[in-house]
Amino acid sequence: MYTRIMEVSPWTLRSAKLEKEHKRLQESLTSLGNGYMGMRGSFEETYSADSHLGTYIAGVWFPDKTRVGWWKNGYPKYFGKAINALNFSKVKIFVDGQEVDLAKNDVAGFSVELDMQHGVLRRSFTIFGVRFDVCKFLSVAQKELALIRWEAVSVDGKTHQVRIDSIIDADVKNEDSNYEEKFWQVLDKGVSDDRSYIATQTVANPFGVEQFIVNAEQTFAGSFKALGGSQTDWQVSNSFEAEVGGTPETFEKRVIVTTSRDYQGLEAVKAAGRALSEKIAGVAFETLLDAHKAGWLHRWEIADVVIEGSDEAQQGIRFNLFQLFSTYYGEDARLNIGPKGFTGEKYGGATYWDTEAYAVPLYLALAEPEVTRNLLQYRRNQLPQAQHNAREQGLAGALYPMVTFTGIECHNEWEITFEEIHRNGAIPYAIYNYTNYTGDESYLAKEGLEVLVEVSRFWADRVHFSKRNGKYMIHGVTGPNEYENNINNNWYTNTLAAWVLDYTREALAKYPRPDLNVSAAELEKWADISANMYRPHDGELGVFVQHDGFLDKDIRPVSALSPDDLPLNQKWSWDKILRSPFIKQADVLQGIYFFGDRFNIDEKRRNFDFYEPMTVHESSLSPCIHAILAAELGKEEKAVEMYQRTARLDLDNYNNDTEDGLHITSMTGSWLAIVQGFAQMKTWGGKLSFAPFLPSAWTGYAFHINYRGRLIKVAVGKENVVFTLLKGEPLDLQVYGKDITLNGSHTAALNK
Amino acid sequence: MYTRIMEVSPWTLRSAKLEKEHKRLQESLTSLGNGYMGMRGSFEETYSADSHLGTYIAGVWFPDKTRVGWWKNGYPKYFGKAINALNFSKVKIFVDGQEVDLAKNDVAGFSVELDMQHGVLRRSFTIFGVRFDVCKFLSVAQKELALIRWEAVSVDGKTHQVRIDSIIDADVKNEDSNYEEKFWQVLDKGVSDDRSYIATQTVANPFGVEQFIVNAEQTFAGSFKALGGSQTDWQVSNSFEAEVGGTPETFEKRVIVTTSRDYQGLEAVKAAGRALSEKIAGVAFETLLDAHKAGWLHRWEIADVVIEGSDEAQQGIRFNLFQLFSTYYGEDARLNIGPKGFTGEKYGGATYWDTEAYAVPLYLALAEPEVTRNLLQYRRNQLPQAQHNAREQGLAGALYPMVTFTGIECHNEWEITFEEIHRNGAIPYAIYNYTNYTGDESYLAKEGLEVLVEVSRFWADRVHFSKRNGKYMIHGVTGPNEYENNINNNWYTNTLAAWVLDYTREALAKYPRPDLNVSAAELEKWADISANMYRPHDGELGVFVQHDGFLDKDIRPVSALSPDDLPLNQKWSWDKILRSPFIKQADVLQGIYFFGDRFNIDEKRRNFDFYEPMTVHESSLSPCIHAILAAELGKEEKAVEMYQRTARLDLDNYNNDTEDGLHITSMTGSWLAIVQGFAQMKTWGGKLSFAPFLPSAWTGYAFHINYRGRLIKVAVGKENVVFTLLKGEPLDLQVYGKDITLNGSHTAALNK
Repeated sequence: MYTRIMEVSPWTLRSAKLEKEHKRLQESLTSLGNGYMGMRGSFEETYSADSHLGTYIAGVWFPDKTRVGWWKNGYPKYFGKAINALNFSKVKIFVDGQEVDLAKNDVAGFSVELDMQHGVLRRSFTIFGVRFDVCKFLSVAQKELALIRWEAVSVDGKTHQVRIDSIIDADVKNEDSNYEEKFWQVLDKGVSDDRSYIATQTVANPFGVEQFIVNAEQTFAGSFKALGGSQTDWQVSNSFEAEVGGTPETFEKRVIVTTSRDYQGLEAVKAAGRALSEKIAGVAFETLLDAHKAGWLHRWEIADVVIEGSDEAQQGIRFNLFQLFSTYYGEDARLNIGPKGFTGEKYGGATYWDTEAYAVPLYLALAEPEVTRNLLQYRRNQLPQAQHNAREQGLAGALYPMVTFTGIECHNEWEITFEEIHRNGAIPYAIYNYTNYTGDESYLAKEGLEVLVEVSRFWADRVHFSKRNGKYMIHGVTGPNEYENNINNNWYTNTLAAWVLDYTREALAKYPRPDLNVSAAELEKWADISANMYRPHDGELGVFVQHDGFLDKDIRPVSALSPDDLPLNQKWSWDKILRSPFIKQADVLQGIYFFGDRFNIDEKRRNFDFYEPMTVHESSLSPCIHAILAAELGKEEKAVEMYQRTARLDLDNYNNDTEDGLHITSMTGSWLAIVQGFAQMKTWGGKLSFAPFLPSAWTGYAFHINYRGRLIKVAVGKENVVFTLLKGEPLDLQVYGKDITLNGSHTAALNK
Repeated sequence: MYTRIMEVSPWTLRSAKLEKEHKRLQESLTSLGNGYMGMRGSFEETYSADSHLGTYIAGVWFPDKTRVGWWKNGYPKYFGKAINALNFSKVKIFVDGQEVDLAKNDVAGFSVELDMQHGVLRRSFTIFGVRFDVCKFLSVAQKELALIRWEAVSVDGKTHQVRIDSIIDADVKNEDSNYEEKFWQVLDKGVSDDRSYIATQTVANPFGVEQFIVNAEQTFAGSFKALGGSQTDWQVSNSFEAEVGGTPETFEKRVIVTTSRDYQGLEAVKAAGRALSEKIAGVAFETLLDAHKAGWLHRWEIADVVIEGSDEAQQGIRFNLFQLFSTYYGEDARLNIGPKGFTGEKYGGATYWDTEAYAVPLYLALAEPEVTRNLLQYRRNQLPQAQHNAREQGLAGALYPMVTFTGIECHNEWEITFEEIHRNGAIPYAIYNYTNYTGDESYLAKEGLEVLVEVSRFWADRVHFSKRNGKYMIHGVTGPNEYENNINNNWYTNTLAAWVLDYTREALAKYPRPDLNVSAAELEKWADISANMYRPHDGELGVFVQHDGFLDKDIRPVSALSPDDLPLNQKWSWDKILRSPFIKQADVLQGIYFFGDRFNIDEKRRNFDFYEPMTVHESSLSPCIHAILAAELGKEEKAVEMYQRTARLDLDNYNNDTEDGLHITSMTGSWLAIVQGFAQMKTWGGKLSFAPFLPSAWTGYAFHINYRGRLIKVAVGKENVVFTLLKGEPLDLQVYGKDITLNGSHTAALNK
């Protein structure tokens, strides 16, 4: 644990401290999003010290010209970035003519509280004799709506004149802009006494990427009186005033954000904003809030994981699910799940292999199959771009990108861009996962095979035959363990590549696709590659070898390091990390997790016992895989430790980088750790099974899953596990290896 | 050969074509330098099409803030660059009011000629009825002086009014600036009717690097009449005019460049410029030119290599020596040999391992020992910075930089900066080379050991002991073959590291240095590492293995590639290059070259025959090593091919990148190929030996060497080899394995 700044509580994140030292961390943790837009939890009021204001609109991005030290052939021309959009929540507050500045003024009674159950952020503070209570939400009932309400009341017996300038500010920059360029221009703006708007557009780019229009219109409600509007080149503003005494005065800022993603052209974007503003005019704050709350409560009905006996664990899983759904709830098939969601700028891009490897299993269980199918279709739609990426490397078939918006690779480190190609295994794996979980083979037969064949062609071209060894090899890769680069024969990558070739051949046999022109010779070659793929293995240790040469290293456990060495990525030079045996995230173990039905428990144990002690888990994607395997191996303590680490990664700032934004795509990890780990839910061969255990510190936990048209509740208590079929036909499943038919409810004794 | 744009001739580079398509290439080839300053051969007159103006002052540089895509721990903060300084050669010429623009106007009678014997660049062209003959040199007699003379004569029978605006322009930028920043500011300027000056200073930087002042003052001579001076923010200008008829009118631009490297503060820099201008005022052009010519003739007396029977070969070696000495003649101990000299901006930095590996052998033979000793002392002076570099990587001892001005590492690719550490072997090797060649052990005993001990400490910390193999290994390096990165156990690096440890121990035994605090345990450790260093070797093939895993590649020769694939670095994506077996430059063979007395002829042949066919020589440093080994192995055809490639690398633009500047540090290669290759000069164990052969296309060649106080001439003819002792005591040496004492002259029959 690095820093914990929010109180532990089952449904809320709360702090009574105005964190100046950890301002950015607090902003990350109090981010809000509704899948359509989102923002960091920066103060709306003036805060003249270090802070990272960030407002992001899903699917709105900019191609930032590539910046590298040394150009390498094949590097992409730009890095697509989710860009900081206009700041529509800004206000300036003046009390008796003095501007409120939360960085400089003496602030009393400060509190901030994120209500995860209802998706509402509340803040309170008292300044210059006036107490302000702020309530903010981004509506999940009306995605375009951001609503912020200030209640002001005098606490010193005097009457204060309070003025609020409500601003929309288009003068924003990305902190991570490669060349400190501005990504936005103002297209239009308008101000009247009681409303104003500003329409912005991303600036022109030489890469043929769409220029997005984003329009924000603000209207107002409450008891403050309008003083009139004003504007500058980059801002529009409306001023309001109230005499604030002992009775609360309220000011509501209602912002409607519309974009060219939904409406064609400036006029339509503006008109939509106008229409939506009109639609909510006169609707009471509480009515708008209730509709929003109802949306969140509905989400929790299926998704909530109830943990008894540990508020820390409970808060962790809820925070993860809350932020994950704030980023993506599957409502817009054009979107994917960005690594920082709406909580920061780092990494850029919208789509990583994280989606397929870590998010798909959760969405399969907690959403309708269409959501996952959309995620798969997203990749199918980008197949031409993936073909382009392979061509850029002089290779056949399709190479899905490491980071992208459109399918075109955006990343620009050779050891990642060109080499971390195992992503081209995770994407087929998700097709398998969807097909196996849902039982729906229609996607595989049609779009799935189109992807699989092109990916197989890539792998068949990317391997080479080593005459000396009589084996196919894959040189020059980076595995999931990014603390080693440009390695040869990464066991995970080689295993995944061979599996893709096999799975494609099997699927083609079942669903012939003459339109894909796969020749007999091609099929034969794929079979030969898979049969003769080199998979490094050490007989003496009985483990799969992460890559050639790994065992030549100075093998030692993380426990041999001084605490001062950690985290390695902040304390060690890059070359020292590369040469060390320390593993950033599960690599061999990731493969064992993917293909858990292929390995026996001894193989799993030997590999876990060998690799886990060398793993520093400095990727947020690592602990959950270890939690799942540890649970299977009966290593309860390790499983719980890993759960804790994944569930509270951001809450406790384990990697000391949450100030940059939340680790959104790894937030599925805590759910995976509970459901696939503690409850040992498996779906191998289309058969659902469970073998739950209860962490000793907990008194129980419960969750729901969707599975093939059923809704099932699983409740694990101190003595029993209760399975309840809440919806759908009776279902055959296995509990602790025993076949049962679930019809209504089934209680099994907890295996201890 | 890619492009040959200059005529073949023994002492000149000449062309009658105004190369618009290959303008930058022609500019590179016609660069001038005098060790103090230099410039690309851009036209002084207006040329409004693509061109690369570049003027550089030795030792004047700027720390350009590091630009990378992704920061890695340990990256340097800035990249030091030899920066484009003020353009002091600029003129605008107007004929009857029309501006001469060599890109746009119809030009007749164009010619350009670089006279290498005298270090003079001449150009002629006729435009608007006037013929201009331009003569330029950077004086080696008065290093601060650049002199350009225009002669104008009417060729159409009319009289033309010709005006020349002579400009000094400080508004220059580096094309390779990371953030398109300007590196210069104007400190002062002044203009009168017959002279003007401008004093510039590098802008402030946050890295504590000295801000250099460069002042250029122009005065004039000739028959043109002064019209007066003028200035703008960034320029000073003096205008001159003449009525040009059938008798030549002359205009001389005399520029004195002084800097804060030699004078303290602006006033002193300016005063020195003034004084030097005064000093040459009234001195005739021919007098100044003659002094300059005499300097070059003196250089050639010792350095010239005369080749009979091949003008191509003759031109190649002279061009290389000319450009090398234009860059560095050992007169300023604060300087080193930058990779592009004064001919371009690419690469930045002043100092690479090229100096120690490729330049030292030449300067040992062609200059006084002090020049090489200065080059060694340069590194000794930077020992604290090398210690800093090692610390940045968390390692003990000293790591010399890949690229630097001050000793602080400037390069910023992890696979080079952190991994191409074999440079820490080349620097000790140069100490050995100096000591062995000169017989002077005083440097080794004192400064040399200070370097060796710290470098040894680095190596001892950088290796690790592989328990599985019972050997010391060096993981994560890049060898001389930069077409493979982050490899393990590069034979060259491991061999060199072990040698450094041995050499240091031996030197310490001979010259004890208690002040360096080398403990017995340390010495024992070094001995253990060297004795148990893993050196990959393949028994079946009988070759040293470039690195672990190399033999697992799809091994095939360059001849298996299509010509369309070459050069790989322009045709293939980086990852494809990395995975291929193709070698950028000698790697194992570089080691065999360094330690030629340790390997027998069979070992040399097997390794040469194995590696050479896979080598694409896309580093300019590669062919010479192959020429030397091929000559030793009796492979005359290969030796000559490799000589041709190194000697005419830039003249024939083999690597298709000479437009960026000349490959200065590899220009020693053609000399090495002749002297260490064709003539088989060796100095193993302090004993000089020769075993010359004569390429069949040649009728003879001759060169001089300095060796331990002697000056020896070696002349190889069709039948005989004649050794002549021109200076110094009689000397024992070996010719074709036979001991002789050289006293006066010795003739041996040529071995055919």
